[in-house]
Amino acid sequence: MNVLAEKKKELARLRDEVALKTIEIIRLIAERNRLAKRIGSVKRGEGLPLDDEKVEDELLREVLREGEKRGVERQLVVKIVSSLISEAKRVQEIDPGGSRGSPMSVLTKVVKLQREGKRVIRLDVGEPDFPPPAAVVEACHEALKGEKTHYTESRGIPELVEALRAYLKSKSHFDAKPEQLVVTVGGRFAVYAAIATAVKEGESAMIIEPAWPAYKEQIEFVGGKAISVQTSLEDGWGPSPEKIEERIRPNTKAIVLNYPSNPTGKIVKPSLFREILEVANEHNLTVISDEVYDSYSFAPCPSILEGGADSFILTSSFSKTWAMTGFRVGYAVCDRESAEKIVRLASLMYTSVPEFIQYGAIKALESEEEATRNREQMRERIAIAGRELDRIPGLEYYRPDGAMYVFPESREESFDASTFAESLLNEDGVSVIPGAGFGRYPRCFRISLGSPKEVIVEGIRKIGEKIA
Amino acid sequence: MNVLAEKKKELARLRDEVALKTIEIIRLIAERNRLAKRIGSVKRGEGLPLDDEKVEDELLREVLREGEKRGVERQLVVKIVSSLISEAKRVQEIDPGGSRGSPMSVLTKVVKLQREGKRVIRLDVGEPDFPPPAAVVEACHEALKGEKTHYTESRGIPELVEALRAYLKSKSHFDAKPEQLVVTVGGRFAVYAAIATAVKEGESAMIIEPAWPAYKEQIEFVGGKAISVQTSLEDGWGPSPEKIEERIRPNTKAIVLNYPSNPTGKIVKPSLFREILEVANEHNLTVISDEVYDSYSFAPCPSILEGGADSFILTSSFSKTWAMTGFRVGYAVCDRESAEKIVRLASLMYTSVPEFIQYGAIKALESEEEATRNREQMRERIAIAGRELDRIPGLEYYRPDGAMYVFPESREESFDASTFAESLLNEDGVSVIPGAGFGRYPRCFRISLGSPKEVIVEGIRKIGEKIA
Repeated sequence: MNVLAEKKKELARLRDEVALKTIEIIRLIAERNRLAKRIGSVKRGEGLPLDDEKVEDELLREVLREGEKRGVERQLVVKIVSSLISEAKRVQEIDPGGSRGSPMSVLTKVVKLQREGKRVIRLDVGEPDFPPPAAVVEACHEALKGEKTHYTESRGIPELVEALRAYLKSKSHFDAKPEQLVVTVGGRFAVYAAIATAVKEGESAMIIEPAWPAYKEQIEFVGGKAISVQTSLEDGWGPSPEKIEERIRPNTKAIVLNYPSNPTGKIVKPSLFREILEVANEHNLTVISDEVYDSYSFAPCPSILEGGADSFILTSSFSKTWAMTGFRVGYAVCDRESAEKIVRLASLMYTSVPEFIQYGAIKALESEEEATRNREQMRERIAIAGRELDRIPGLEYYRPDGAMYVFPESREESFDASTFAESLLNEDGVSVIPGAGFGRYPRCFRISLGSPKEVIVEGIRKIGEKIA
Repeated sequence: MNVLAEKKKELARLRDEVALKTIEIIRLIAERNRLAKRIGSVKRGEGLPLDDEKVEDELLREVLREGEKRGVERQLVVKIVSSLISEAKRVQEIDPGGSRGSPMSVLTKVVKLQREGKRVIRLDVGEPDFPPPAAVVEACHEALKGEKTHYTESRGIPELVEALRAYLKSKSHFDAKPEQLVVTVGGRFAVYAAIATAVKEGESAMIIEPAWPAYKEQIEFVGGKAISVQTSLEDGWGPSPEKIEERIRPNTKAIVLNYPSNPTGKIVKPSLFREILEVANEHNLTVISDEVYDSYSFAPCPSILEGGADSFILTSSFSKTWAMTGFRVGYAVCDRESAEKIVRLASLMYTSVPEFIQYGAIKALESEEEATRNREQMRERIAIAGRELDRIPGLEYYRPDGAMYVFPESREESFDASTFAESLLNEDGVSVIPGAGFGRYPRCFRISLGSPKEVIVEGIRKIGEKIA
């Protein structure tokens, strides 16, 4: 027998062994599932909660140690264990996702009602009714006429990147390099891309609830797990750094912050912000700071660009500051490597933001007057909403430091905001978003201040009448 | 001891067993990796190819049988095996992805040169230089002025969905329900969403090469494997149904078709198209039919909407027909369930296409004159490019039936299109895309006909001079 034939025989033998090992792995998974099923039935029999994060964490730690000892790549171990846990939950019959109401699903319902000719007092979606700056409309039109209707760099046209760089420098004294900026289709894509960049399958990211539902949905979409830190109205919606640290798990990679906050309007004090960043740094978490509402700040609002985070991705948008929601243009600011990943995602999914919109966006950055006008109107609306809410004895609320929402809570223990919101929409023609969309807040609902004062007043009065 | 304490003890015991099984799984993975490493070194020693699809397939089949026997969910088995194979390749030191040149990377380079003031004869990116219809520009402007600048339904505004429905009906006699249509940010997102809908992690999808690079990139992005069927210039770029069938693997879920084809300009005969659909039906493949170039068809072009596929997703765009690349608006047509998934992806990632652009798109669907003008210009350009290419003795090419490209091949065995394209750009200021971007086509390059006739003639003459 020649050498080649011998080697081929050896190859065949090795391959058979690989196949046997693989089949053995599948057998073990089947046995593991059987055990999980029994655990599920014991738990159900005793009325014990089915989900158990602590047990999962302990398992993950143990298995990671084993993997390290034996030279199996950490990322593979994390991924396999998370697949096994999901499968175990499935056989235990726990719904791993669970569907929840969200601003977008209410939007679709409300728009349908409006198209049917019904009048709806819109206190739902986070969209200011202000007009976009005239200069932006004009610039878009000029660019359209000038055939700025082609693909552009996925990062954004250099003129917009440069304008953004100058804007950030004058606003936050942050001197970004062009390689650290990416223009995206809306702030939503910036957040998705930030999450996809920081969190891989089987890993986890922390969110401070109540939170914009997209954070959780996007974390789960990339195969991650959203770990929520609960905050409460009694504590002024302030997260405690200790609680955050306590909830960090062995596979936690990022924390999402959002101040001013949607839905509470909370701005944390700069000192607390820094403490949170310290915890994040200690545990090597990337801080994803969604600062989309920063222009609607009526208390000093800390920005991630002021420093303090070892690793961060800022996401923002033109949507709120300049009332450009329907233009779909946002941006991310981060380290070069993350920016490169975000550019690749944009390139993979949609090539670039429409060229003429990018020319419009440049003009937005110069539209200080409109930004100020919008901010002042929002400040006034918050005051008015507060005045109206103060008249409703059944509700408590935190007076917003910023953003464009109030998130009142019913004093009644048995209040169900989802039922309330549905009936409020159907019977009274007022749309709000129930608290379940933002976490475990069954007694809360979100009032958006995107409508004119009179509408806000009318809507809140109807809420008061209903609650009384 | 009471019952609860006993049950808790049982739970603890079961959990320990789960942990032991999990650790055992990790151990087996480590052993499996050791075997893979040895296989790699044997292969390298003998100069044998490292990648072996047949072996992988056999393994997957075996393991799927085992999983089925033992009640492990098929999707989990596919995912785990694909993770193990990727890891095995990593330890065997095979690059699982491999980077390739692509139209978008060339675009960025060319735009940079142009911004530096260099003149480039653009024969690269698939973008017609035609102006968009004036009615579209006007409608966008009107909508902008009318403050159509808000979020819309993620599926698209009902007016555009209805206009699209009517357009498809008049063009293809296909009577879509509104639930079967989704408006997307460009055809690229429609393709991504179609792939994400049809292919899960660990599964595979077939592509006919040469192919638009995004298909492979997007399949790999969702964790799938792209299986390529090679076609050749000698065979007139026609894929054989037998070859397609031969390449279908146990986890293959979809096949991507693209006629008229980018980069070859090929349109398969309707009879061959039907034969391919029959193979797809037999193997339960979803047919993703990218018909973005259908208005540039100069031979009868079969459409998936004419029937014959059990499961399909059509993707298309306003980009080529109406020269609206920089508007980023495309669409998908499919079954309700897939459409629902695509809507959810759009909603998760970017909310909606800019509102005023959707009003513009409605006008595009009525712009028959411009569509005809663009088509006729493209027909003329194909003829002119052919005349010029016929004068270059070193090149062979297939005369396009449609689309907006020619994909010539050098007769010289040692020709390297990547080196050629680079030198052509740097020394002669002519940009083309090397064949490596579209598959294993080192002797081919793509000439785009998105520039005016004179430019095409000038560019191809420079190519001729360089090759001579």
